[in-house]
Amino acid sequence: MSGKSKIPRLGVCYYPEHWPHAWWGDDARRMREMGLSQVRIGEFAWSRIEPERGRFEWAWLDEAIHVLQDAGLSVVMCTPTATPPKWLVDAMPEMLAVDAMGRPRRFGSRRHYCFSHEGYRAESRRITRAVAERYGAHPAVIAWQTDNEFGCHDTTLSWSAAALKSFRQWLIDRYKDIGALNAAWGNVFWSMEYRSFDEIDLPNLTVTEPNPAHVLDFRRFSSHQVATFNQEQCRILRACSPGRDLTHNFMGFVTDFDHHEVANDLDIAAWDSYPLGFLEQFWFTDEEKSRYARQGHPDIAAFHHDLYRGVGRGRWWVMEQQPGPVSWARFNPAPLSGMVRLWTLEAIAHGAEVVSYFRWRQAPFAQEQMHAGLLRPDRQDDVASDEVRRVVAEIRHLDQGGALTGTTTVHADVALVFDYEAEWVTQIQPQGAGCSSLRTAFEWYTALRDLGLDVDIVPSTADISSYKVVVVPCLPIIAESFVEQLQRSTAQVLIGPRSGSKTSRFSIPVELPPGSLQRLLPLKVTRVESLREGMIEYGSNFAVHRWLEHVDSSLPSEWTLDNGRGVLYRHQQVRYLAASLDPASMRRLFKIISEEVGVRVCELPEGVRMRRFGSSRFAFNYSTDTRSIGEVLPQGTLMLLGSVELAPADVAVWVE
Amino acid sequence: MSGKSKIPRLGVCYYPEHWPHAWWGDDARRMREMGLSQVRIGEFAWSRIEPERGRFEWAWLDEAIHVLQDAGLSVVMCTPTATPPKWLVDAMPEMLAVDAMGRPRRFGSRRHYCFSHEGYRAESRRITRAVAERYGAHPAVIAWQTDNEFGCHDTTLSWSAAALKSFRQWLIDRYKDIGALNAAWGNVFWSMEYRSFDEIDLPNLTVTEPNPAHVLDFRRFSSHQVATFNQEQCRILRACSPGRDLTHNFMGFVTDFDHHEVANDLDIAAWDSYPLGFLEQFWFTDEEKSRYARQGHPDIAAFHHDLYRGVGRGRWWVMEQQPGPVSWARFNPAPLSGMVRLWTLEAIAHGAEVVSYFRWRQAPFAQEQMHAGLLRPDRQDDVASDEVRRVVAEIRHLDQGGALTGTTTVHADVALVFDYEAEWVTQIQPQGAGCSSLRTAFEWYTALRDLGLDVDIVPSTADISSYKVVVVPCLPIIAESFVEQLQRSTAQVLIGPRSGSKTSRFSIPVELPPGSLQRLLPLKVTRVESLREGMIEYGSNFAVHRWLEHVDSSLPSEWTLDNGRGVLYRHQQVRYLAASLDPASMRRLFKIISEEVGVRVCELPEGVRMRRFGSSRFAFNYSTDTRSIGEVLPQGTLMLLGSVELAPADVAVWVE
Amino acid sequence: MSGKSKIPRLGVCYYPEHWPHAWWGDDARRMREMGLSQVRIGEFAWSRIEPERGRFEWAWLDEAIHVLQDAGLSVVMCTPTATPPKWLVDAMPEMLAVDAMGRPRRFGSRRHYCFSHEGYRAESRRITRAVAERYGAHPAVIAWQTDNEFGCHDTTLSWSAAALKSFRQWLIDRYKDIGALNAAWGNVFWSMEYRSFDEIDLPNLTVTEPNPAHVLDFRRFSSHQVATFNQEQCRILRACSPGRDLTHNFMGFVTDFDHHEVANDLDIAAWDSYPLGFLEQFWFTDEEKSRYARQGHPDIAAFHHDLYRGVGRGRWWVMEQQPGPVSWARFNPAPLSGMVRLWTLEAIAHGAEVVSYFRWRQAPFAQEQMHAGLLRPDRQDDVASDEVRRVVAEIRHLDQGGALTGTTTVHADVALVFDYEAEWVTQIQPQGAGCSSLRTAFEWYTALRDLGLDVDIVPSTADISSYKVVVVPCLPIIAESFVEQLQRSTAQVLIGPRSGSKTSRFSIPVELPPGSLQRLLPLKVTRVESLREGMIEYGSNFAVHRWLEHVDSSLPSEWTLDNGRGVLYRHQQVRYLAASLDPASMRRLFKIISEEVGVRVCELPEGVRMRRFGSSRFAFNYSTDTRSIGEVLPQGTLMLLGSVELAPADVAVWVE
Repeated sequence: MSGKSKIPRLGVCYYPEHWPHAWWGDDARRMREMGLSQVRIGEFAWSRIEPERGRFEWAWLDEAIHVLQDAGLSVVMCTPTATPPKWLVDAMPEMLAVDAMGRPRRFGSRRHYCFSHEGYRAESRRITRAVAERYGAHPAVIAWQTDNEFGCHDTTLSWSAAALKSFRQWLIDRYKDIGALNAAWGNVFWSMEYRSFDEIDLPNLTVTEPNPAHVLDFRRFSSHQVATFNQEQCRILRACSPGRDLTHNFMGFVTDFDHHEVANDLDIAAWDSYPLGFLEQFWFTDEEKSRYARQGHPDIAAFHHDLYRGVGRGRWWVMEQQPGPVSWARFNPAPLSGMVRLWTLEAIAHGAEVVSYFRWRQAPFAQEQMHAGLLRPDRQDDVASDEVRRVVAEIRHLDQGGALTGTTTVHADVALVFDYEAEWVTQIQPQGAGCSSLRTAFEWYTALRDLGLDVDIVPSTADISSYKVVVVPCLPIIAESFVEQLQRSTAQVLIGPRSGSKTSRFSIPVELPPGSLQRLLPLKVTRVESLREGMIEYGSNFAVHRWLEHVDSSLPSEWTLDNGRGVLYRHQQVRYLAASLDPASMRRLFKIISEEVGVRVCELPEGVRMRRFGSSRFAFNYSTDTRSIGEVLPQGTLMLLGSVELAPADVAVWVE
Repeated sequence: MSGKSKIPRLGVCYYPEHWPHAWWGDDARRMREMGLSQVRIGEFAWSRIEPERGRFEWAWLDEAIHVLQDAGLSVVMCTPTATPPKWLVDAMPEMLAVDAMGRPRRFGSRRHYCFSHEGYRAESRRITRAVAERYGAHPAVIAWQTDNEFGCHDTTLSWSAAALKSFRQWLIDRYKDIGALNAAWGNVFWSMEYRSFDEIDLPNLTVTEPNPAHVLDFRRFSSHQVATFNQEQCRILRACSPGRDLTHNFMGFVTDFDHHEVANDLDIAAWDSYPLGFLEQFWFTDEEKSRYARQGHPDIAAFHHDLYRGVGRGRWWVMEQQPGPVSWARFNPAPLSGMVRLWTLEAIAHGAEVVSYFRWRQAPFAQEQMHAGLLRPDRQDDVASDEVRRVVAEIRHLDQGGALTGTTTVHADVALVFDYEAEWVTQIQPQGAGCSSLRTAFEWYTALRDLGLDVDIVPSTADISSYKVVVVPCLPIIAESFVEQLQRSTAQVLIGPRSGSKTSRFSIPVELPPGSLQRLLPLKVTRVESLREGMIEYGSNFAVHRWLEHVDSSLPSEWTLDNGRGVLYRHQQVRYLAASLDPASMRRLFKIISEEVGVRVCELPEGVRMRRFGSSRFAFNYSTDTRSIGEVLPQGTLMLLGSVELAPADVAVWVE
Repeated sequence: MSGKSKIPRLGVCYYPEHWPHAWWGDDARRMREMGLSQVRIGEFAWSRIEPERGRFEWAWLDEAIHVLQDAGLSVVMCTPTATPPKWLVDAMPEMLAVDAMGRPRRFGSRRHYCFSHEGYRAESRRITRAVAERYGAHPAVIAWQTDNEFGCHDTTLSWSAAALKSFRQWLIDRYKDIGALNAAWGNVFWSMEYRSFDEIDLPNLTVTEPNPAHVLDFRRFSSHQVATFNQEQCRILRACSPGRDLTHNFMGFVTDFDHHEVANDLDIAAWDSYPLGFLEQFWFTDEEKSRYARQGHPDIAAFHHDLYRGVGRGRWWVMEQQPGPVSWARFNPAPLSGMVRLWTLEAIAHGAEVVSYFRWRQAPFAQEQMHAGLLRPDRQDDVASDEVRRVVAEIRHLDQGGALTGTTTVHADVALVFDYEAEWVTQIQPQGAGCSSLRTAFEWYTALRDLGLDVDIVPSTADISSYKVVVVPCLPIIAESFVEQLQRSTAQVLIGPRSGSKTSRFSIPVELPPGSLQRLLPLKVTRVESLREGMIEYGSNFAVHRWLEHVDSSLPSEWTLDNGRGVLYRHQQVRYLAASLDPASMRRLFKIISEEVGVRVCELPEGVRMRRFGSSRFAFNYSTDTRSIGEVLPQGTLMLLGSVELAPADVAVWVE
């Protein structure tokens, strides 16, 4: 997760097919003048590339690429498979995904396909090959994006006949024998036993909840279908476009498929960063949604940066950066002045090779007409343009000041372990409303970031040998290899509730939770409680909400509730936390753990975040008030950017 | 919108088929004695008129009309097409509308038909002709109502095969060429381009939102289907029943079709006034729903009166007036004592020719058994009967006192411009939860009425040349003719946010919003923000919530937020308001504007409303406390009705 | 409802098919050692009993019963019809119930069958006969349970073709003539008249609400299908297993079918008691859900005990007693320490013959893996085991102390009349959100129990001649026989709002509500109001919320609102309450009524409940604070269990 520094690049998403040919040259020139260096094109253009089956129209796209190249811009080319044209859908209507209620999800927007449909798979390969053969060797093309935002609009799961057929085969491959499946799922429970794989349905429209083991396998299968769909495209692109980087633009808070499995076929993980939209649409409280309405919660972007740096094994981009109000959230305010600059510099501080804005010019028509761009629909600069120009200059300034020297990303002291499968488990069986592995991971991340710590978010398969602190917020299914890594680790380890609570077959481990983690510390979780909003259990200096486990252990508890029940246990360097703590308690615990291994923490003012990059340090102010960062600065520090008194949306950079 | 005064009439809705024949005579006599003069009958009686295909049973209806006529009552006859009988539905099951999820909306209540089904269209004409031929020339029949409450129960839109077929034809008629449609809708956006009109689907069940241009055209088409359905009946009625007025009973807050287009074939617009039910079911706050639970919000009835006066080009009725608790709202309290009288007099003050109560006698059976009438199910007078008797006497008294002399409706000083299409646009693309053209129009109306102003609600196609103040709360699509009218106007004009923000093809205007309104004042809206509940932006003496636009203009702003952003701009007599204001700020602005053109305003006490009628003035107290209206009365005014101290639910009338 | 005392027994639910054969012996031994005496088995084991059509595997079940018998345990055997195996569903897919949206409710959980499907009916009889012939005469088998939790997961109503066919026949049997049906339902209302029974549909997917008379008959029909389904099994069991008690485990707050009709074929009513889950899932306020999160609302268990004692005509069991956290509520906290003991003793105090825990050992797999048992998944005792051991000893102690002597259940002074049909009526036509017969019954019950009163919950067909107080919270449809009983009664009677408001055909009575109850006291309800949250009407010392009726009567009102409207009327020993009162007012009224007939009341501290059993008295503390019950104890009372200072979750018992 480190490498030689290259100066981060800025780019933009562009749709030449949306605009008069006559504008292209001017657009390209202005991109270049603004300091952008790469342009993503083509991901929704299938109906223009192939207006009817087998009739390809390349001329306009050839010309568009040529114009960009002429202006000195590189091109990120896309496969257009997220938007199959109507003629294709009409030719094979069963290619549509089916929703959980059994209704086909029809043509008329995007992502209207089922990952399991063999016919559409063949079409995906055919159009990928056509585009790759045309532009694979084009000197302007430096990278490829597959499809667009896998999983967006809840499209990972399809309840179609094609999915059923493939799922049955996937089960045959996994279990071989129907008896093995019945045993694995515990189908005896409600006489749910099957006599053959042909009897198995998809787990929807059941009278009450289906068997969680059945659902988990369907989730694994569905995730795998995304990965193989992507893999088929990647193989063609590798063959036709040697030397180019392959990437995909993942989304925020989408967890329906295993991003690591998909990224195995990619060189770079990219993600689409919409901090304001994500704040409004996800689990944040009304208070947080109001306080950060024009900035985004201070951890939304950073969490994904640190997550996707792991997904991309060190290499990652922001493929789409929000440049103004979006069109798709419940409320769509404008970013606070300066936020586009802040988001860009923050991505760079977290190691992004590229930050690419979505989109060049606001489209006046169709679904996203209210989505801002760098330019307004009338071709004038929109607000973000000036912020981009400023960032371009600042990147140059920082580079000259040595702030971007050395490794692009410092290996953090803290590893936060998050597996996508963990989130599937808690979605399938929350046991308490709002209980989620992802949300727990985010809340732990926030507590760590409040203390000024850098964090690497890694899967449980990653090498964690060199971290000083390893935190595992919620990992119900624990691989044997991960237990072994933890056993070998010298880090301070904090394991969160529900970790080790399930076998890979979605049952409770024979030895009770935390299952094989008991090899690390002698305790058993004998009972769990989910607590409704407002139910708080207090200890002398901590508070528990939402989740509380009852623990049997020979260990003394480090933290104990007023009622005598222990919630924190330690054996050597490993701790198990048997409860969901409130934010202040969580910070306090991380402070203790960090100080034990000599990792320096500082309690940052509300809304301030920090990040090391090589030998430099960045500070960001997400609050709407000026914040002093004097306490975290060594005396006499010389600022490369900003000052000790950090204005709202402002950024400070210094070399330590 | 003015005419010679005729004394307003009171009527009632009656269902002879629900009651023993032996009761009819007594019912008619008591109606007459109560002071009612007209009776609406027949709109749900198809199964009694034609119990099976082609077998007509007229005798009972002949007799019912005869009984009413004998008692000196006039008859408003209806076409029974809102309730096709089961034998008809079974003969053509595809006549059922289909809901947005693809499910047929089945027999068993009412309005179970698709406006686009040709077979049902023919049936509608057949039964209309049968009834019209039977009673068209009957001397007791003075008017006809077509169908019942178009659009009620969400029945304007149908997602049926019949609708698809007709929609495609409608698109062919509109666009001629599929390329023109693709260009108009911006179908290039997500490869949504069609090769022929046969490829186009209805815009439901898409993966994410469909193209708003696609939806808007479907909304226009669906509205047009209602109009032509109504038109077919009207043509038959005109032919068979010369000299009678044609009307339809529209509903409250139903905007799914263009009422003006439907009313083009009618002589009179009628509406069904249920102030308590509408308060409970629509967007009002919990505080308002509690405060006005037994009175209705003071603007619900008046807003519709002023709206339907415009729809009827001056002629309008209340066809169904709530006389007690209804059965269909979430909560169904009883009106405050006196409210039925108040609602009746208020309708008259706003120019109603007729106020007709729904219904004569509460039916003890079927769906509406908990809906009060003038009589209880046991044939005794219900509470409202006495209020009706009192109103009858008071109308006579007011007429003798000269209060009903002169023109029936005074041309108001203020025109509020509302187009149904505007509401479709904001429903299709709210951009912020709860943002709605209709709601904005209602809120502006409330602010005007709080100032004691009379308001005409008119479409943008109306002649606005003689108003002193023209307000345009939210009109995204602006017709060229309306711009020209505004240019010629000498009125003070206030244009609200989002006006001019869309072309007729649902795209952002090339010149940016407010589009062609820029010919009136030089400004561009460069960005919009929707703000979640609780986000308030303050100016020195005003506050903005919910919606805020960023404006580029050479004009100085009249009102400026503390952050320096202008929200109110003026050029000559035209102002543009770039934000949603809180109620007090909105009142303040209207006060300024009104005073500029010498329109006198007065800030009315909470819950009090006023209305001019010819030379007389009415005041109404919707609050639950006694209110003094002394400040708005000239010294020594002689009251025709009521007094300066207005009790709850009381009415005062005086001649100015 | 009384009988000779037998010492209450404890039992457990056990699934030998879930566990290795090798564990069975140890399980049985430990059950016995724990003090349990009976074991329920087999209700979900169809796929193990008959793995494919006609191939029966009895050996394992023979052995399981043998092992239990050997340990001295009795067996409650079940019919396995709640979980038909996949091979059966695939053989007759139309056996699946259909949901109200028209979607089949598929295999993959449980209760996936339609009560009306003739094919499945035959299968139900076939498997019942097979099991009954095998074990009917087995000496270890003391009782049978039919199926499992009828109605659970909303399974009473099915909108299938089979249901439609049977419904039409049921209507033919009831009405004979289609004209009679049209008249009964008032189908003339919206031309809903039918020409033949073949035209009638199920009342779903209509445009707006269907005819309530149509729905009520469908509800009656659906309830009857449950009863005949059960009856078919009972007839076979009676024939094959003479001398054994037949029972069914009903659920909490399930009212979709008439439990009395089902219980007519049973000897014992059993119910499944999950106080924490029911608290979380039903209408209780957030404040109540938090306050009683670990105890359950103090009336949830008792209400059902008193209800099912009536359903079982005096004989009843708790078949499944919650022993720890459950898996299926929105939040699933653990019971407060001591609650399992409290719930057990409370059931005994209310007259349970058996309390049986669900389940022996927590299953580590499938849907209910997070549902606690007496044992943990690792075979160790879970928390509840010790509470069970304590209860076993205490039962012995109480019996020796004479506390369980005499009649098992004392006839209470107060009868609360509740009919299942009453709840159907208010569900079909709430008229105000949240208005429900069941909820009203529960609230009245709470007010009575707050006063320390014992209550029998009885249907309106029960003999009420010996009660001192009879309360009728909400009984819209009043049978003639019930009116006659009330006329003969010498009890103080309180009739609640909506009682007598409907005929059996779901129409308003000719004489207005309360219909035939007017023979008891001269008053008419002329109008009803439902009031939204926060609307309160006050009298001098009472408050009305949610529901208010307007009454015409020659009687003076006993309680009168400040606005002069009467809400309480009395004629001789009968009172009519024309409003929904707040809890304190309700208590006050019951206190007055009780004192009139010399029934002693005492206002219990919050969370405390009392219950007489023979000559003994039990007190229970549902609060989380210690409560003193000194005021309700005679001086010098000797406690058999507990003390005057009642700790949280503690129980006191004394002989009076």
